[in-house]
Amino acid sequence: MLFDTITIVGVGLIGGSIGLACKRKHLARRILGVGRNPETLEAAQLLQTIDAFSLQLDVAAAESDLIVFCTPVDRIVEQVVVASHHCRPGTILTDAGSTKEFIVRQLEGKLPAGVHFVGSHPLAGSEKKGPQHARASLFDGRRVVMTPTKQTPPEVVERISRFWRELGSEVSLLEAHEHDRIVGITSHLPHLLAAGLAAILPADCRPFVGSGFRDTTRIAAGDPELWTAIFLQNRQALCQAMIQLTDRFSDFLDAMVHQDAERLTQLLAEAKQVRDALGT
Amino acid sequence: MLFDTITIVGVGLIGGSIGLACKRKHLARRILGVGRNPETLEAAQLLQTIDAFSLQLDVAAAESDLIVFCTPVDRIVEQVVVASHHCRPGTILTDAGSTKEFIVRQLEGKLPAGVHFVGSHPLAGSEKKGPQHARASLFDGRRVVMTPTKQTPPEVVERISRFWRELGSEVSLLEAHEHDRIVGITSHLPHLLAAGLAAILPADCRPFVGSGFRDTTRIAAGDPELWTAIFLQNRQALCQAMIQLTDRFSDFLDAMVHQDAERLTQLLAEAKQVRDALGT
Repeated sequence: MLFDTITIVGVGLIGGSIGLACKRKHLARRILGVGRNPETLEAAQLLQTIDAFSLQLDVAAAESDLIVFCTPVDRIVEQVVVASHHCRPGTILTDAGSTKEFIVRQLEGKLPAGVHFVGSHPLAGSEKKGPQHARASLFDGRRVVMTPTKQTPPEVVERISRFWRELGSEVSLLEAHEHDRIVGITSHLPHLLAAGLAAILPADCRPFVGSGFRDTTRIAAGDPELWTAIFLQNRQALCQAMIQLTDRFSDFLDAMVHQDAERLTQLLAEAKQVRDALGT
Repeated sequence: MLFDTITIVGVGLIGGSIGLACKRKHLARRILGVGRNPETLEAAQLLQTIDAFSLQLDVAAAESDLIVFCTPVDRIVEQVVVASHHCRPGTILTDAGSTKEFIVRQLEGKLPAGVHFVGSHPLAGSEKKGPQHARASLFDGRRVVMTPTKQTPPEVVERISRFWRELGSEVSLLEAHEHDRIVGITSHLPHLLAAGLAAILPADCRPFVGSGFRDTTRIAAGDPELWTAIFLQNRQALCQAMIQLTDRFSDFLDAMVHQDAERLTQLLAEAKQVRDALGT
């Protein structure tokens, strides 16, 4: 067993899936859930994603060897700081947040001696939420980005890397800033596009929507408050990515206005080449 | 039987699926395929999407009661005109093109007496191509837009409506201009977004791409030449849709720059509401 007691703060889709995946691999003797909503925690326990739960982060923290924060990105820093002051020395804290630079920078130097935080972001998820959508296989074959700093002890990186690998994922170590630039393009920018496209669909067009529109806008069904926090924390990288994309849109519009078939085909062929390389 | 001999010009994904669906419902005694590439036609026959094939449109046209043009939108007008001059009076011609105004307008008054064209667009398809991806069920529960003009005899509209309904689809009658406005938003705009997003993905970001990026860019794998012709024929509606979307993107960027969480949540909630209403 990798840890005696693992506490998961926020037992929704990601937190619940971590619980199920930990149990599948027997990574802990006991898995605790912490949250604010007793109904969600009861559902999570009923679904056996956690063994027991508490509404009190400080109490659970004192009993934990690992705490994984699966809460919205605008709550993680505060919760980590609070929890850390109730942990025994040697306890490790990590998260599953979609942004990393803000979180890691804010926590630098804030934790008591012997208690360590290392940022994690499993590139897995869905537009669905709640423990009822949790799956033990959610992390199979997925990538988890970890963002240790110069202050993170190597053994902490090693243990948390092993944790994610045991859950079925491949681990990449990146600087937090680099992580945010990358997910700004691969995750936050697609979300912005999907949300923009969905929002402008006129009511009279809805009966004519096909699978292409559905695919392109699927992630726009994500939780608006979760994504507001993500967009704000990563607004610099996201705005930069959007500016780059706007340039590309201008290229398309220019080619259309000038009826430049050759240029249009070239732009579309570049896109196809990238998309084909990504697979299904 | 609705028709004795149906000819399908272009036996790829759409044309092949029409063949299979016609056979499933016994809509014709005989289904002919016409194309330029003998290998594709042989494959289509082997897969039993067609009964026989010809490389000569004029010869097949003379034997046909219905001809369905499933070729790229920039070839349909010319092929319809050529075929129509070899048809017996009473033969009906239709198509499966993604644009309608250009095609319908170009054909107005060009066909010999007794031979009629009515525009169709089945809102079904995929980024895949070729008869090997054809499916008899492709049109089940899908919508087909037909764009008759004042010159189209009601019995032609009725027969072709029935044809598509027998194939499993629901039929909507629209003005060609209205069709183009709608698919500019529901189909061509998503394609442009997907292609733009896929194209700007930096090579170092590829390992970090998840299901959201894949969903959002899936249609960018479509055939560049087919989509060049579609974009050019519908450039007016597509550019207008893009301008509308750009306004919405500006709203997002403004909200991010001003760190206006409330506004951002509102924008994302509007998108979620629309997307949720569309279903999976």
